[in-house]
Amino acid sequence: MKTVILALLSFSLFVMPGLSQPDTGAMVNRIFKEALTHQVAFENLRGLTGKCPGRISGTPAAAAAVEYTRQLLEALNPDTVWLQVVEVPHWIRGRQEKGMILSAKFGQMKVPVTALGTTPGTGPEGISAPVIEVSSPDEIRELGKTKIEGKIVFFNRPMDPELFNTFAAYGRAAGQRTRGPAIAARYGAVAAVVRSLTTRLDDIPHTGVSHFDEMEKKIPAVAVSTLGAEKLHRILRNDPDTRFYMFTGCRNAAPVKSFNVVGEIRGTTFPEQIITVGGHLDAWDTGEGAHDDGAGCVQAIEMIRIFRKLGIRPKHTIRAVMFMDEEIAQSGGKVYAAEALRKGEKHVLAMESDRGGFLPRGFGIGASDPELFSQFMSLKPYFSPWGINEFARGGGGTDIGPLRQQGTILISLVPDPQRYFDVHHSAADVFEAVNPRELELGAAAITSLIWLADQMDFSGQTK
Amino acid sequence: MKTVILALLSFSLFVMPGLSQPDTGAMVNRIFKEALTHQVAFENLRGLTGKCPGRISGTPAAAAAVEYTRQLLEALNPDTVWLQVVEVPHWIRGRQEKGMILSAKFGQMKVPVTALGTTPGTGPEGISAPVIEVSSPDEIRELGKTKIEGKIVFFNRPMDPELFNTFAAYGRAAGQRTRGPAIAARYGAVAAVVRSLTTRLDDIPHTGVSHFDEMEKKIPAVAVSTLGAEKLHRILRNDPDTRFYMFTGCRNAAPVKSFNVVGEIRGTTFPEQIITVGGHLDAWDTGEGAHDDGAGCVQAIEMIRIFRKLGIRPKHTIRAVMFMDEEIAQSGGKVYAAEALRKGEKHVLAMESDRGGFLPRGFGIGASDPELFSQFMSLKPYFSPWGINEFARGGGGTDIGPLRQQGTILISLVPDPQRYFDVHHSAADVFEAVNPRELELGAAAITSLIWLADQMDFSGQTK
Repeated sequence: MKTVILALLSFSLFVMPGLSQPDTGAMVNRIFKEALTHQVAFENLRGLTGKCPGRISGTPAAAAAVEYTRQLLEALNPDTVWLQVVEVPHWIRGRQEKGMILSAKFGQMKVPVTALGTTPGTGPEGISAPVIEVSSPDEIRELGKTKIEGKIVFFNRPMDPELFNTFAAYGRAAGQRTRGPAIAARYGAVAAVVRSLTTRLDDIPHTGVSHFDEMEKKIPAVAVSTLGAEKLHRILRNDPDTRFYMFTGCRNAAPVKSFNVVGEIRGTTFPEQIITVGGHLDAWDTGEGAHDDGAGCVQAIEMIRIFRKLGIRPKHTIRAVMFMDEEIAQSGGKVYAAEALRKGEKHVLAMESDRGGFLPRGFGIGASDPELFSQFMSLKPYFSPWGINEFARGGGGTDIGPLRQQGTILISLVPDPQRYFDVHHSAADVFEAVNPRELELGAAAITSLIWLADQMDFSGQTK
Repeated sequence: MKTVILALLSFSLFVMPGLSQPDTGAMVNRIFKEALTHQVAFENLRGLTGKCPGRISGTPAAAAAVEYTRQLLEALNPDTVWLQVVEVPHWIRGRQEKGMILSAKFGQMKVPVTALGTTPGTGPEGISAPVIEVSSPDEIRELGKTKIEGKIVFFNRPMDPELFNTFAAYGRAAGQRTRGPAIAARYGAVAAVVRSLTTRLDDIPHTGVSHFDEMEKKIPAVAVSTLGAEKLHRILRNDPDTRFYMFTGCRNAAPVKSFNVVGEIRGTTFPEQIITVGGHLDAWDTGEGAHDDGAGCVQAIEMIRIFRKLGIRPKHTIRAVMFMDEEIAQSGGKVYAAEALRKGEKHVLAMESDRGGFLPRGFGIGASDPELFSQFMSLKPYFSPWGINEFARGGGGTDIGPLRQQGTILISLVPDPQRYFDVHHSAADVFEAVNPRELELGAAAITSLIWLADQMDFSGQTK
């Protein structure tokens, strides 16, 4: 049989009310061309990374980033720009860390380390102790207190290079950093060394937060570069009596008053229905926070710029939000959602860009209403000419996540994931690692999706 | 009406004879995982770029690249490795170029320039002359001899940043470099300055070949960086009497004997039917030729390695070919096709990778036989899990192009084009600009497509 008969659901391409499908496509193309030609997001990222590197929440650099992006938004003259107060934790890295393998058999070898966020310092003398290598927090439980007590626990699980989606590989291995030190502490470990979460073999350590519950004992912990981890692994195998020496000068200070930065264009038809687009303003101090998440911030600002430049008056209220403190306590996202609830705001849609300023591949769409979901899916043909083809269920993000329980549709920009963990939380996350065309394609993708979504009817969807 | 009835051609997924569709998919996945885990192509590229930078055809560095890749292939122990003699042009860059804007009004300003391939040198004194700016070779014809004679012609057409496909933008602007100087010479110009072919605004000049027919007068010509071009444009607008000074020390020497490098695994069932996979070995000396086209070379070698590693005995004869002299006279590709014809070889399929070692998006498929074309199109589901979704008509390339008239199916690997012209023919085309995962995904895509194609029946297709 050479032909088959298929019954398909009718597929109608979403079009702007009052506009033909070609006109709708033409508008999307104008948005992309505006971003690619003028590359303003890229220039804003140069400014943000150049003027405000090291903007961990609570630091003066974070305050500078608040003021810098507030001014960028003000200059675009939207209807309102304001700061939303957020109390944030304040972890201070202090003096440059040291890490050293001490083997009676092979000698002393320095390895590159960086302290993990929220961990305490080692004290001026540092810590030296025997090392026990594990591949997961679970293994600690199996080994028990007798094997762990008084030791430095070395978590050495590599990220799986076989997975196309590096975020999935990160997800599987990240527990050793986020919870490993706390669990090691519970079993009497004096400190922890964690293999950096990257598939690259290099000398660059990757930091990140390590969570301790309020009542949990905190111990010093560092990330070691992947080559450093490989070295420690080899030395340990050949000399089980190997010790590790580490110094960290970090400490947790009192919480600090900080801000989310919000720029808003008021909607003409449904001003009370709010669409939020955001990234996070804070970043680890090891690099410049270019991909994580300067990119998401300048893309959100670029959306406001392109709306203004092309004279688009949205029907719904559109906000660009720079969330503060995604990296440590996620307080910016929590405050934003709590304030929305307190004020009775209707948040119909929120989009987050926090996977780097890389080539956009598609969107993760978290609309539970089947009609709205299929409307979003039907937008795909407008994006295909720009290489954006992957529309899938999903959607969310650390900062917009708290809005979910208010019935908000959550959408994520999904860039290609191959290069993200080369730079993530490390000294490699600098402006030069960002390609202007990839960043701007992402900004244009966000702007186009929001422009299209602004034509939709969300009245049945909000709680 | 909520449903429509569509009649579709039946779509049957291609499967390995004797293997189920899941098993076929599993084999493709094994190929991808092998490439991503061991990253041998990436390490080979480190070697090629580190040991053989500046490998313009005819140079000692090009000879080193021949020997380096021959040894890489030999170490994989395929059935045969051999060198195919190619006579290549030998253009020598000589001393570092100089470029300077000379304005009585604004002073003297150095700008970064690089000589274009095949152009003659300026002589030791250099050339200084008034400048006339044009946006295309056609404009020279309009201006005529009186406006051009004795001048340095400044071609200042930017690459269009609005196009998603940067190769299309390159194609539109490249004539000013490939033919501009020859046409300027015809109208009496003494030299030419060409705006670098990139959408980046920076200080890095991008070289490339400039063609002169045998009887055409040759004049010195340089590429100027895009920022240099912008500067020259502004100065000229405000001081039309501006002159330009340039020095180039290049010259054309006698042709040199060089080689294509070929590694072959003999087919078990159709040994006389040949499948070729290649990239080009020569590269401009401004950078290391990492993306252009070290990437294509090591990807072809990676295919041989993965076939050997996984114990795949192909039915057809499979060759990895490093073509020599793609950049200047394309002699390697011409010789390869001519030798195939002379020996009566049946080349059923040829694939080229010469668009950089970037994220693979898909393939351009040049199969005129509709049955074979649809077989190739039906392979797409095997590649989707690896982010490779764009299967389209097309296919070809400078090196495999001459095989077309022998009825060979031509296929191109199509990587994402956003970053290619950031580095193309410039000092930015270095090993560090290549991401190992992107490079290996490309190698795995090639290897998988060739493994799948090897199961097809080409007997009706060859002339």
